[in-house]
Amino acid sequence: MISVLIIGNGNVATHLEKAFLSANTIAVTKISSRKLESIPNAMVTILAVSDDAIATISSNIKNSLVVHTSGSFSMEALKNSTHKGVFYMLQTFSKEKEIDFSAVPFCLEAENDEDYLLLERVARTIGVKIYAVNSKQRKALHVAAVFVNNFTNHLYTIGNDICEKNQVPFEILHPLIQETSEKIKILSPKKAQTGPAIRNDERTIKNHLEGLPKDQRKIYKLITQAIKNGN
Amino acid sequence: MISVLIIGNGNVATHLEKAFLSANTIAVTKISSRKLESIPNAMVTILAVSDDAIATISSNIKNSLVVHTSGSFSMEALKNSTHKGVFYMLQTFSKEKEIDFSAVPFCLEAENDEDYLLLERVARTIGVKIYAVNSKQRKALHVAAVFVNNFTNHLYTIGNDICEKNQVPFEILHPLIQETSEKIKILSPKKAQTGPAIRNDERTIKNHLEGLPKDQRKIYKLITQAIKNGN
Repeated sequence: MISVLIIGNGNVATHLEKAFLSANTIAVTKISSRKLESIPNAMVTILAVSDDAIATISSNIKNSLVVHTSGSFSMEALKNSTHKGVFYMLQTFSKEKEIDFSAVPFCLEAENDEDYLLLERVARTIGVKIYAVNSKQRKALHVAAVFVNNFTNHLYTIGNDICEKNQVPFEILHPLIQETSEKIKILSPKKAQTGPAIRNDERTIKNHLEGLPKDQRKIYKLITQAIKNGN
Repeated sequence: MISVLIIGNGNVATHLEKAFLSANTIAVTKISSRKLESIPNAMVTILAVSDDAIATISSNIKNSLVVHTSGSFSMEALKNSTHKGVFYMLQTFSKEKEIDFSAVPFCLEAENDEDYLLLERVARTIGVKIYAVNSKQRKALHVAAVFVNNFTNHLYTIGNDICEKNQVPFEILHPLIQETSEKIKILSPKKAQTGPAIRNDERTIKNHLEGLPKDQRKIYKLITQAIKNGN
């Protein structure tokens, strides 16, 4: 039995607790980051709090191994005097949607092999995709995640707006969105590219630009140019 | 039995012929757009050629109903003197990947109800998602498709590049990409948005921008600003 303490109240903390509760070999406790007067002891303490709170909260923890779940902060952001590590799940968590942890990549880091293996055992109770990722790599992954998740989602928002403005259901675009996201498992995204930019189809590009509001036109122009430049 | 003639040699023509061949109620023939000396007769003639070739090729066809498959061209781009229509499949077709036509939205347009119903019957032999979409709506959908498909795919390319540069496998991002594309079936993309831009997390944004090459930095800045602006 591995004792795990989760500190936090957000989506990550909530989903993680739920998953560990159904794992036989984990004894999980969860506390709010606002109730740090008496922190329960645990073999692994997971700080699932906002990035800005990591330093302050960790400095109050005496438990043997303390890890954070942040994609952008290095392991050294932890200020506990005991062992440090990172337990970063590269997935988007929302309150409204269940998480399938078997599809979540766990990016783990620790100061020594023993701690790493403990984190790996913990991750393996709920997940299957486990990667050793150092702080520099994790930071890069976090930036990449912003592009493929937040920015992509913004492009979906634009797609939705255009549909609404023209009285066509956004669901017409769902299969294309799905296919685009699945194609890259078979082809590299560079090879998978299609459309007016890669074809240098200036007439279609001009045609598209004419109908767009200013903010959307800027994005259209910039990404079209980037596709043409090949980077 | 409905006779269908496909004119074209590209991915759309190839995938479409294959699908019709397995439909019991369709007699399909396919010819190259370079062999127009003797065009076989057919109830529906589908011009699956590049946009620029639509006018010239259609002007040579005497068959009763001629449709094109272009997202960006209007029905009037056809120059046959018989009936016109559009048979636009809003999906990305590549040589290397099979198409599941049951997931493809068919956007149909015709000059009269009889022709529309014939196109619908043809589409229904291979598909299930069928929409009446006029030329203005189709043009808007085509622009939206560029955002959610080509531009999204470019963001995947950037994600891939960042991974390669940092020696982490791109597959770590696949589940996030998948989840992002599926979330919007449950939540609107606007509501689904997460990340540093929507949180106004200036420290993370600054941190991310510092490590990016110029072209990627421009895209990061512009989309971050658009997310902050809420459009």
